[in-house]
Amino acid sequence: MHILVTNDDGVSAPGLLALAQEMRLLGKVTVLAPDRNWSASGHVKTLHRPLRAKPVTLADGTPALASDGAPSDCVALALMGLVPEPVDLVVSGINPTANIGHDLTYSGTVTAAMEAAIFGVKALSISLNSTPQTPQPLDYAPAALYARRIAAEVLQRGLPPGTLLNVNVPALALDDIRGILTTRQGTRIYRDQLVTREDPHGHPYYWIGGDAPVGVPEPGTDYGALVEQHVSVTPIQLDLTAYALIETLQGWGWNAH
Amino acid sequence: MHILVTNDDGVSAPGLLALAQEMRLLGKVTVLAPDRNWSASGHVKTLHRPLRAKPVTLADGTPALASDGAPSDCVALALMGLVPEPVDLVVSGINPTANIGHDLTYSGTVTAAMEAAIFGVKALSISLNSTPQTPQPLDYAPAALYARRIAAEVLQRGLPPGTLLNVNVPALALDDIRGILTTRQGTRIYRDQLVTREDPHGHPYYWIGGDAPVGVPEPGTDYGALVEQHVSVTPIQLDLTAYALIETLQGWGWNAH
Repeated sequence: MHILVTNDDGVSAPGLLALAQEMRLLGKVTVLAPDRNWSASGHVKTLHRPLRAKPVTLADGTPALASDGAPSDCVALALMGLVPEPVDLVVSGINPTANIGHDLTYSGTVTAAMEAAIFGVKALSISLNSTPQTPQPLDYAPAALYARRIAAEVLQRGLPPGTLLNVNVPALALDDIRGILTTRQGTRIYRDQLVTREDPHGHPYYWIGGDAPVGVPEPGTDYGALVEQHVSVTPIQLDLTAYALIETLQGWGWNAH
Repeated sequence: MHILVTNDDGVSAPGLLALAQEMRLLGKVTVLAPDRNWSASGHVKTLHRPLRAKPVTLADGTPALASDGAPSDCVALALMGLVPEPVDLVVSGINPTANIGHDLTYSGTVTAAMEAAIFGVKALSISLNSTPQTPQPLDYAPAALYARRIAAEVLQRGLPPGTLLNVNVPALALDDIRGILTTRQGTRIYRDQLVTREDPHGHPYYWIGGDAPVGVPEPGTDYGALVEQHVSVTPIQLDLTAYALIETLQGWGWNAH
């Protein structure tokens, strides 16, 4: 088995190291990750400039590649042949904060896994539900362990084309985590606020500020599982069609105008 | 009615101008768009740096705002209060090339409309299916006209929460377009290839190159409609859950390991 490990926080992030170490128990691991933080970067394909990929070393001495591309670029580079050996699974993470609800389309962690699914490669994204109250430094070991369990199942059973798994793990000790729940994508409530300032020359500039987003703890959802101390596994699909709306729209009589 | 017009090609793009002019027939129009091209930029939320929004003028004299943020940032800025008047509809485009199949999560045009849907505002993205063979300069008038027809319906009938419409228009004369079809998201075949070069210092760099992606002309899909000279309207949802896979995963017996 050959597993590609990437993330959106950059190649020196501790969550990437924990993930790479644990994945090595399943097979050969290649690390190709961004050389800087790309949080909330979305799904990027860099066509307008060339990309670099430089050999670096993780904190435990593991050889890795660091690219100046986005997380999804890293996956594309690897799967297009920069990593010569075929890849059986792409694992993206471990992000320090949860990727739930509407976070998914913004998330570099998740869009890296989406890129793998577009290439027809099995993929999962994994995030730790830490908050500003979680003790530092963050303990990625429980999330890495669950990532390995889930990755082992995915490697054995496969996933349908055009799908991937998005995993979120409570920021708790392993013994306090109550196992895995299969969930649907829940609701995020963003509390962003526009903060307007003036520069020293009297011109306005704007921050997207405000408090961190909160989840709605609805049973059956990603966040509902996390608040009940479960790991959430949400199957995600690349097909964004709102099928329930097709019939409605067909009744709109578009051509009548 | 108050309509926010944005795009991912930048405030000086001709597709934006055509769209703004046509939307003005439905109500008041505010233009807030990126100051540069953000194609294939994905869904971005810029939190790590402040954003600017400067008054500019479109080619026809229309006042507009140009921001150094991504398309989704432009929508967020407007809906968070930079544009004081409430917005009834966000229209993003007109992109010069189609946004179909897996393009949707990469597309700045589409993710701008997604951002509006996250804010609970009705939204549509609109793209012209031009190719390198399409006569230049591109004629955005037919696509703008269809955008107005569809926007008028959306304003009158509304859309369910968490949904938006993704519209693609054939690059044909108005008389050659055979009306609107409601479609599902089709399949894109990407033909990206890794192009490896060496810089003057002997270090490798990489381009994501290759031919432009092609669509699969399957009936019922976005691309299937386009090749039959129809406008495709695909309802899109923010919920990415692969519901069909939930039961399968529940049978995987996660906790047995």
